[in-house]
Amino acid sequence: MERHFEQELEEMKERLLWMGSLAERAVHQSVQALLESNEALAQGVIEEEPAINQMQMEIDDRVVQMLALQQLMASDLRFVLAVSRINADLERIGDQAVNIAQSAMRVVRHPRVNPYIDLPRMSRAAEEMVRDSLNALVNKDIEMARGVMLRDDQVDHLRDQVFRELLTYMMENSTVVFPAFELILVAKNLERIADHATNIAEDVIYIVAGRDVRHHAAK
Amino acid sequence: MERHFEQELEEMKERLLWMGSLAERAVHQSVQALLESNEALAQGVIEEEPAINQMQMEIDDRVVQMLALQQLMASDLRFVLAVSRINADLERIGDQAVNIAQSAMRVVRHPRVNPYIDLPRMSRAAEEMVRDSLNALVNKDIEMARGVMLRDDQVDHLRDQVFRELLTYMMENSTVVFPAFELILVAKNLERIADHATNIAEDVIYIVAGRDVRHHAAK
Repeated sequence: MERHFEQELEEMKERLLWMGSLAERAVHQSVQALLESNEALAQGVIEEEPAINQMQMEIDDRVVQMLALQQLMASDLRFVLAVSRINADLERIGDQAVNIAQSAMRVVRHPRVNPYIDLPRMSRAAEEMVRDSLNALVNKDIEMARGVMLRDDQVDHLRDQVFRELLTYMMENSTVVFPAFELILVAKNLERIADHATNIAEDVIYIVAGRDVRHHAAK
Repeated sequence: MERHFEQELEEMKERLLWMGSLAERAVHQSVQALLESNEALAQGVIEEEPAINQMQMEIDDRVVQMLALQQLMASDLRFVLAVSRINADLERIGDQAVNIAQSAMRVVRHPRVNPYIDLPRMSRAAEEMVRDSLNALVNKDIEMARGVMLRDDQVDHLRDQVFRELLTYMMENSTVVFPAFELILVAKNLERIADHATNIAEDVIYIVAGRDVRHHAAK
């Protein structure tokens, strides 16, 4: 019984990490599709979303099963509750990747807005935050989780730069209003991806240290 | 023991509804502040946010306590897990209200973009969704919850109209680019508020019917 339970916890974690790798790939490919005007790649991201949704429901079923059948110790309870929240964050990262892919498909129909300076930097920062938040989970690494939380402000700063850059283009040249608007939406999506990575990092700290560091109590 | 437990469930629900009423009021006041260029009202919304955050942590503590101390029946377990998710949605509705309040404070420094046609309609629709999702929770009313889910598409449609309207202004007159951009951000915030209300409605169905209707399985 004991062993069986440990094994279920381990399986749950593995499924969550698998889902994390799908979400991470979706983000990377959607941004690549946008920057390279690659419609087929964007289409691929959109087609993969149902698999991520399916996995979210499966992981949530495991959470309910575990809570219903086991009287958990405090530390295991924290872990299972955090899994449920991280699960929701990963699913929403997948949603944001789909939004970026949709923008990528619309933006190719407009004249290209050059140069994309801060958007690639912003996307690299957001992708790194997702990857590091999952690495922090695997290694129960509080320092790495804190590092993710601190980088959220940098992404917000890059977002403001992207906005300023694009609004200036719009004022100078009214024909770029539509494509520049799509890039504003993409910057909003990347901002939310970074927010979800921050949530995951907060949950890693909750799992490892047993402290609730939401609302920046840890900063 | 039995009675004590029932009482705790009831208290948890009351705290959640109180939090819901704070979030609902924050949304209403932030939109009002924007439409009436009322900076003091916007400031008030921003100052009330810590109270909502505090309440989220308190409710989550109750959730953990209840799961740690009680072996719950399936229906009570569903309720407690849904409370934890609804709690997170309400806190995020509060965050969005703060974003709208911040836009309201910036937008007063620019020339007024007239007329706001679809934005007030969109905000009324989003506010109604929040209110109805909470009413559906109070009354365990599945039909009302379904009604909320169906209206999410209407809000997305209004958002697209708001975008089109504002982008057209921007193309015609480059001096309105900045204030019109603020209103685009507000439309995005309202869209997310409607998304959170939809999540709450889905959780009401999960509580009452025991079915997971996320990813629109119920539609």
